[in-house]
Amino acid sequence: MNTADLGLPVDVPSTALFTDQYEFTMLQAALKAGTAERRSVFEVFTRRLPEGRRYGVVAGTGRVLDAVENFRFDPGVLGFLREARIVDEPTLEWLAGYRFRGSIWGYPEGEVYFPGSPIVRVEGSFAECVLLETVILSILNHDSAIAAAASRMSTAARGRRLIEMGARRTHELSAVAAARAAYVGGFDSTSDLAAGFRYAIPTVGTSAHAFTLLHDSERGAFQAQVDSLGRGTTLLVDTYDVAEAVRTAVDIAGPELGAVRIDSGDLLLVAHRVRQQLDELGAVDTKIVVTSDLDEYAIASLAAAPVDAYGVGTQLVTGSGHPTCSMVYKLVARARSADPSAPLQPVAKKSLGGKMSVGGRKWAARRRDADEVAEAEVVGVGEVPPELAGQQLLVELVKGGEVVAREPLDAARDRHIAARAGLPMSAIQLSRGEPVIPTEYA
Amino acid sequence: MNTADLGLPVDVPSTALFTDQYEFTMLQAALKAGTAERRSVFEVFTRRLPEGRRYGVVAGTGRVLDAVENFRFDPGVLGFLREARIVDEPTLEWLAGYRFRGSIWGYPEGEVYFPGSPIVRVEGSFAECVLLETVILSILNHDSAIAAAASRMSTAARGRRLIEMGARRTHELSAVAAARAAYVGGFDSTSDLAAGFRYAIPTVGTSAHAFTLLHDSERGAFQAQVDSLGRGTTLLVDTYDVAEAVRTAVDIAGPELGAVRIDSGDLLLVAHRVRQQLDELGAVDTKIVVTSDLDEYAIASLAAAPVDAYGVGTQLVTGSGHPTCSMVYKLVARARSADPSAPLQPVAKKSLGGKMSVGGRKWAARRRDADEVAEAEVVGVGEVPPELAGQQLLVELVKGGEVVAREPLDAARDRHIAARAGLPMSAIQLSRGEPVIPTEYA
Repeated sequence: MNTADLGLPVDVPSTALFTDQYEFTMLQAALKAGTAERRSVFEVFTRRLPEGRRYGVVAGTGRVLDAVENFRFDPGVLGFLREARIVDEPTLEWLAGYRFRGSIWGYPEGEVYFPGSPIVRVEGSFAECVLLETVILSILNHDSAIAAAASRMSTAARGRRLIEMGARRTHELSAVAAARAAYVGGFDSTSDLAAGFRYAIPTVGTSAHAFTLLHDSERGAFQAQVDSLGRGTTLLVDTYDVAEAVRTAVDIAGPELGAVRIDSGDLLLVAHRVRQQLDELGAVDTKIVVTSDLDEYAIASLAAAPVDAYGVGTQLVTGSGHPTCSMVYKLVARARSADPSAPLQPVAKKSLGGKMSVGGRKWAARRRDADEVAEAEVVGVGEVPPELAGQQLLVELVKGGEVVAREPLDAARDRHIAARAGLPMSAIQLSRGEPVIPTEYA
Repeated sequence: MNTADLGLPVDVPSTALFTDQYEFTMLQAALKAGTAERRSVFEVFTRRLPEGRRYGVVAGTGRVLDAVENFRFDPGVLGFLREARIVDEPTLEWLAGYRFRGSIWGYPEGEVYFPGSPIVRVEGSFAECVLLETVILSILNHDSAIAAAASRMSTAARGRRLIEMGARRTHELSAVAAARAAYVGGFDSTSDLAAGFRYAIPTVGTSAHAFTLLHDSERGAFQAQVDSLGRGTTLLVDTYDVAEAVRTAVDIAGPELGAVRIDSGDLLLVAHRVRQQLDELGAVDTKIVVTSDLDEYAIASLAAAPVDAYGVGTQLVTGSGHPTCSMVYKLVARARSADPSAPLQPVAKKSLGGKMSVGGRKWAARRRDADEVAEAEVVGVGEVPPELAGQQLLVELVKGGEVVAREPLDAARDRHIAARAGLPMSAIQLSRGEPVIPTEYA
């Protein structure tokens, strides 16, 4: 089936057009100049964290691997590039046989990162690597922004359940990636069914105000919902009067009522009142779910409230003030030929306006103190010092064009929890501050 | 071909899973209660504009029409809903025959909107309408946020060319929708090839610093680019020393050099110096393109600089501080049966915490003064006053399930320019302020 038939927003038959045009024009010029096959190393890194953030979270790696694997040029795509005169015929011929055959190393998904961390390193010919810039950055910049927000929210929630429900606030396919990234960052479930379908993330959802308003009375609506979904359902109690709704809910569902949801008002105050009322009505096991413009600060401020779960939308899928990361994809070294034995020469743009780059093919390790707490992100070129050899951060993701590091999403989620736990305690402060460990250049 | 094979982030075979789970549970409960077929009216509106903004821009309407048309349930989707126990068997049977057969009216794409504007109105049975909530909101909230930022940037650019180049800063498919929305908002071209492929938006792009660094010298890189792309190409002149690069560029390409691009440093200062140098070298027709963390304010601040085109990335695709709109999809009226003659009863949630809704099926018109300048957004229920009949804003988009309002993207772009031009002059001030016209409830 053609994706155009699906109402999907693009009908590109591969990931090869998730690309900025300049990657193709550079390719064409390099092919003509005879420099396209020069062995090259590109690295993804960020010069800074979003203002005030203590750490970043790598997310999207699994999606990057899919995108690289499917970066192919079929006749439709080649036809477009020809008709739109993006590139010349020799370049089209070269593209027709394209497959990434190089290697990719990177921080595994869920790992934390800091300014200068070489999050992904792509090696191969200039030609094969330069084409991957945009799609790799799109995925990592988006997914890592969401995962970072999710991670902050999950520390603020202190173990209470977190539901991702932001699909309506972002592009319909961003929403699916956002649910995935939120899960990596510590969320427990999503309202987005496409995310459940595609990534097997647990999904949840019960009803909206529209359901109550559809019926002739709130009682009628609650009765209809309980009749259909059972007493374990979650009833939305703030369409009219909360206290009356809670009374009606317990009257209909009994103390087995699963949960009530509060979506407006002063959540701290209302949650306390509802908890007291539920307890008085004998519904001591009925949970309270709150939703309504939550972010990590609002979640933290509800720590003392009798709340069992948080539903988070807008602020999660927009990265809580930082909807993207500033990751860049830079050529850091290249040889003068395709020969594997030709020496790699470090390269870097001259620093102007703070856009500093460090040339050379890098390694990274996280140095830990005697208590195994991280004390520095160490980045270097050349030999890894023996004392850091066991603490290196980059792992092999693609070898000779083959993906070698697929893993279940839960592995990334577990890794994130562990990586965050290995940072100094101040990492989980929500207040603005510097990166929680410094980056040192060895 | 299966979208999973394409590395697309989801392999949903329709738009039907771009949906929050609660829409399905509400459907199931309403089917069981016998209320699912009640004739219903849902409206999309926003309670406020992003802080300080003077007007909103409707974008994504064309994508909404595609999404509604392709909202179908094939065996794969039904199988998922069954296995994940999202809904019961009677609901699955109902879904198997689903097609939206109702009507949709809305502000045409490119039109401006204000708080309370009924941007989209969806009418049909509760069951068929409730399912469309998330996908409609995802599209409109995302695309309208980008178009609003684009519109501000396009007024700031005062007719100079604007290039969308933010793909790397957002999800790879958001990027395509963002390029589309930016075009509606007044941009001229995009670097994103998928957007060129899918929407025929003009694409542009030449080279990055990596291309210069790949070569043994800047001269070698420029020569390679000119050899391949011709003298009309755009050379990137800030990899090492700008003045030297400009000299080399004109030396190689001659005065026919198309453009130079500056991507760092103090753009105002550097643009002046480069213009002077180009003129002295006789390259008086060579254009200057600037890129580097531009937003509408930076663009405005370069009004006096000799700049010919702006490339905008991050701030455009993240909505320049407002990456989403706060549009909601609310049941505003419903009958007690499916009978077309059954009276519609206005419904609204009780106001709590500022979440005000106005019940009833609405019309909207833009009242204009004697000079045809907009002076109020008038929203009402019931009969349209005769003096406003000719200034109504909602148009028919879907009739009996059939899309009746497809149009080329340029129509939306032209409409936006005209709609913006019909607002009071203060609409295009970049400074923070109130919505440029009030919303009046008739």
